[in-house]
Order: sequence, then structure tokens, then C-alpha cells
Amino acid sequence: MKHKTTKKNYKNTPIKTYKLGSIKLQCEETLHNAFIAYKTYGKLNKTKSNVILYPTWYSGFISDNEWLIGNNMALDPNKYFIIVVCLLGNGLSSSPTNTPEPFNKSKFPNITLYDNVVQQHRLITNYFKIKHIKLVVGWSMGAQQTYQWACLYPDMVEKIAPFCGSAKTSPHNFVFLEGVKAALTADCNWNDGWYTEPPTKGIRSFGRVYAGWGFSQPFYKEELWKTIGYNSLEDFLTGFWEKFFLQRDANNLLTMLWSWQHGDISTNPIFNGNIEKALKAIKAKSIIMPAELDLYFPVADNIDEVKIMTNAELVIIPGVWGHFAGGGLNSVDTKFIDNVLKKLLEY
Amino acid sequence: MKHKTTKKNYKNTPIKTYKLGSIKLQCEETLHNAFIAYKTYGKLNKTKSNVILYPTWYSGFISDNEWLIGNNMALDPNKYFIIVVCLLGNGLSSSPTNTPEPFNKSKFPNITLYDNVVQQHRLITNYFKIKHIKLVVGWSMGAQQTYQWACLYPDMVEKIAPFCGSAKTSPHNFVFLEGVKAALTADCNWNDGWYTEPPTKGIRSFGRVYAGWGFSQPFYKEELWKTIGYNSLEDFLTGFWEKFFLQRDANNLLTMLWSWQHGDISTNPIFNGNIEKALKAIKAKSIIMPAELDLYFPVADNIDEVKIMTNAELVIIPGVWGHFAGGGLNSVDTKFIDNVLKKLLEY
Repeated sequence: MKHKTTKKNYKNTPIKTYKLGSIKLQCEETLHNAFIAYKTYGKLNKTKSNVILYPTWYSGFISDNEWLIGNNMALDPNKYFIIVVCLLGNGLSSSPTNTPEPFNKSKFPNITLYDNVVQQHRLITNYFKIKHIKLVVGWSMGAQQTYQWACLYPDMVEKIAPFCGSAKTSPHNFVFLEGVKAALTADCNWNDGWYTEPPTKGIRSFGRVYAGWGFSQPFYKEELWKTIGYNSLEDFLTGFWEKFFLQRDANNLLTMLWSWQHGDISTNPIFNGNIEKALKAIKAKSIIMPAELDLYFPVADNIDEVKIMTNAELVIIPGVWGHFAGGGLNSVDTKFIDNVLKKLLEY
Repeated sequence: MKHKTTKKNYKNTPIKTYKLGSIKLQCEETLHNAFIAYKTYGKLNKTKSNVILYPTWYSGFISDNEWLIGNNMALDPNKYFIIVVCLLGNGLSSSPTNTPEPFNKSKFPNITLYDNVVQQHRLITNYFKIKHIKLVVGWSMGAQQTYQWACLYPDMVEKIAPFCGSAKTSPHNFVFLEGVKAALTADCNWNDGWYTEPPTKGIRSFGRVYAGWGFSQPFYKEELWKTIGYNSLEDFLTGFWEKFFLQRDANNLLTMLWSWQHGDISTNPIFNGNIEKALKAIKAKSIIMPAELDLYFPVADNIDEVKIMTNAELVIIPGVWGHFAGGGLNSVDTKFIDNVLKKLLEY
């Protein structure tokens, strides 16, 4: 993505993978030779008490999380051991693109939020032998994983800060995703996922539909795309939105989309679909941070959650950047989020 | 559309057409043997002082306007002579589907808001010899035509009530429309408009993308599609959204979409792109009626307009139906709009 950020250069730090073996998923299918990709920043201290977990968002790569990590920021690698873990399906963890036949492409199974977090837990506990997480934090689908962590492992997670996300995907959010999915799959090259040439027309459409949802009405009115390096609205639609998704694979996109559409921290054996019970199970000190004009994770949904949760505070990111207030694209919102995280960590 | 309405049965009243001849358009192209479709309700009185003009909305047919017309309603055919005029491109007025070769399909020219209203004015003045219009009223693109009428013919239009619309299409609204357009044209059957078989996959996608925009987030949360006869969210997405647009032609849809994307009452020789001047030119007593949670014609845009206009009042349609508060689908919003129109007409 072409934009000004406070992003640090962590390019030389290696991306690692953790082998999960054969894992049985909630859908009853098995993913063989599965693995999670992750990257760490800073050093794990002797007491293993300085861990921050920061899962990736929908279609985000590891580098897309790095704008919130840096010296003198809340997520400071000099103080904390920060682990960015990748969603299954994002192209770095097990995904339709990197799973060999016969389980590749459209045959790649449906992955739930629960599947993701249970496997991440294995990485944290079995590999790193970490028993306590200081903070789980994430944007969007990263926020959804954050809630899932806190309710599945309430005694392990001290604090959480999900931003621009929700514990359960709302029906309207589901419909928005139906729209982008329909735009992608209208391309005849899609061929139910068995494409030989990428369905680039569909992927471009996917990006163009997404554009209206990602940012708010006043963002477009005020032409704020100018502030992140675009010369016209059309330049932004193509250079930001189409380009971003053209760098992704269609099956990977739809794998993560399925996870998002079915995102619900309670649809698992622990909570049996009782979302109130799942929210109440969270013990972590929680700051729930929606963006003022987010069109698909609206503030209202988080207000409802905070009413149910026992130790949660709502802090609204003000302004007109909509969902992408949490995308690290502008210094004002980045500073706002960083300050909230600093206070939460210091508390 | 399958829904409960207060719709009256005007099926036996004929749709008429007014021949416009060869008309030169703003795009410099000529539309030959052009015509406008319209339908009238009630009788024109001797002094021709009881005229209400009620243009159609994006992709709407004449019958789709009829929920707001009826005995004892504001638009009462016993009192008023109501004229519903069709947008060029809607399939009843001159459109890609009913224009003979070589000007058919993709060759059909771009039509502006100004083109539409100037030709409607010919129908009203040349054919009906009407010099005074009591009220122009319309939903969505019908609202846009309403503003256009009032600023082009300020001494002719006594009152206006545009609802869920704006005098100028906002950039975000433009982006939403780019999305639905991209979803349709991703279908390879689209073939730049020269399809032999309709691009039904693209049209279905068009409807599915539109679904998220048409109604608000809480509409979906509260599952209010149940109140208009659908059994599941999927039933609503297919039975309402896909079905509605599958009954339309793709080239017609994109013709009207172009008009909407470029909707601006000031881009004409009278106002030279000065939207403030165009809004200030409106003399009609105006009630501007946005819906509280409209996602693409947001309340904020109408607030800005009312500040500029000299004789306008803002009345917000409350509730969670979003843009489709103005679609005649629920009796509460219908009654609200009807009551506002009654007061405006009585004033």
C-alpha cells in the first residue's frame, strides 16, 4: 500500500512458522501438515511476563501490523516481546495457496475464529512456554481474535484492546461481506475456485466494492485520500483498493472471508453459542475501541458488548477515517490508539 | 418486489409516452425518436393549479412510485393531478433496451439530470400546457430530479419535497455506485454491454452488493426483512435484491447509474457548476427529508444544503430502514412521509 505511515523497517527480521501437524477443525475436516506463520519483536524476558500478542487482520500480512510497533510506542520492542501471528488463510499461515493437493484451492476447509485461536494457543504455550499474556491487541478480524483469546483463556490474558472489531460478526457486516464475495465470484475465471488464471476482474471489483465500506462518507467528501499520496479518486480506487487485493489470492481471500462471516467467539464447545456467557467470561481489563464512523463494525455494537462485559471500557477513536482509522494510515489516529494502549499497559 | 405495502392497484391505468423527437444531450450526442414514459392519476383542474410531479427513482418503474399515491393520502388523485415521469434509461422512457440500432445497448448515450428534467419540462409545458406545479416530490434519484426542477424553473415550482436524496451526488455515494457497477461488469457475459445472454451473475452480484447499502445496520440486526415477507437473510438477499435487479436490464442499469454518479443540479449552462448558486435559485417552499440512517444519502449532506437554501426546512425520517425508509416498504415510514407531505401541501 502506498501511504505515509509511522511504519518501522522490520524487513530483515525473519518470518517463522510453527508446525501444527494434522489438526481437526470445527468443520470436522482435517488440515494436514498445518502451520502458523508469526514474527516476533523484542526479547522475551526471564519471567516471560512481557508478552504482547497481536494477530493479523483480514487479508493483512505481518508487515501490515508493524505501524503500531516501535521505539517509544506502546508496543515497544525494547520493553515487550511482541508476537504477530497470522490468520489461517492469509497466505503465510496454512492457506489454499500453500497447501498441497488434494487439499488446496477450493478444497481448503472452512476455518473458524476458534480454530485460529486454539492453534495460536499451542504456539504460545507449547513452543514459547508462555503462561501469561500481558496484552492481546488487534484491528478488525485481529480484534475478533482478541476477544476469542480473552474468553477462551481468561486466566492467561491480562489485558485486551480490540479496535474496530466485535466479538460477533453482525448481520449487516455479513451482508457487506456477501457483497464483496459476490463481486469477486461474478468473474467467470473464478470457476468455483479452480482457476488457472487469477480472476483479476473479480478481485478488482472486490476492491472497488470494499472502497465504499472501508472509509466514511466525510473521508471521501474531504478527499482525504490526498493525504496518503493519491492524486484523484480514481487513482485511490485503483492504486489503493484494487492494488491491495490484486496482491492477494482469491481463494485465500474467501477462506478468511468465511472465517469473518462466521466470526462469533461463542460458537465453540465452551460457550455453545451463548455470546453473553462468552463476553462475561472475559476477565482481562478491556478497552474496546471502535472508530466513530466505522460502517461495518459500528460503535453501537461495541456499546452493547461493554454493557455485558465486567471489566470493559469503551473509547471511541474520533474522526472521519471510518474502519481504516485502525489501519495505521494517518498519524492522528495512530497516536490516539497508541496513547490508549500506553495507558492500558501502564495501568 | 414481494412486500406488504399500502400500494393501490393502478394497473389498469395506461402508461403513456410523449414523443420528444431528436434531442441533443449535454454529452453532445443526439438521441433520435426519443420519448418519455409517464402515467397520470386524478384530473387536471380547469385552472391547471392542482399538479404534482413525481419522478421515478433509480431503476424504479412507474408502479414502484404508487405506494405514496391514494385516497386520503397527501398525493390524493381526488384532489390532485399527479404525473409520474420516468427517467431516461429506466426501460420505459428511451433506454438502451428500447432504442433501435445503431444507438442501442452500450451505444446509448450518457444522460444527465439536466437532460432528464429539461425533457420532462417539455412534456409538462408543451403537451399539458401546465405553467405552475404545486409540488415536485421524489425519492432518491427522484429527489435529485426534484431539486433540478426547482432550480431550473423556480417560478414554476411552488413546493418541493425531495426525500432520501441530494442536489449533488457525494463522492462517497459515487464510490458506492462504482462498487455495484464493478460487481455487474465483472461478469464476462457483460462484454462491455454487447451481451447476447444477460449477465445474470453480475446482476445478482449487483443486487447483493446493493443489499448492504440499502438498509441500515440495525435493520439487519433486528431482522426487519421478516416484516416484509422473507424467511431468512438469504431469502431476502435473493428474493428481494437479486430478484429486483434480475428484472432490470444491465445496460439500462448502467445508463441510470451514470446519471446518478454525475448527478449535480449545477452542471448545466444556467449554473456553470456553482452548486450554491443552484441551491439558492430555488424559490419553492422546500422540505428536505433524509432518512436517519441512510448510508449513501446521509443526513449530513442535506443539513449542508438547507443552510444554503433560502426557504428550506429539514425533517428527518426517524428509524432504522436506512435509504429504503423512502421505498414504501413499511407503514410507519410511509405514514411519516405522507404526513409531512400533507402539511406541506396544506401550508
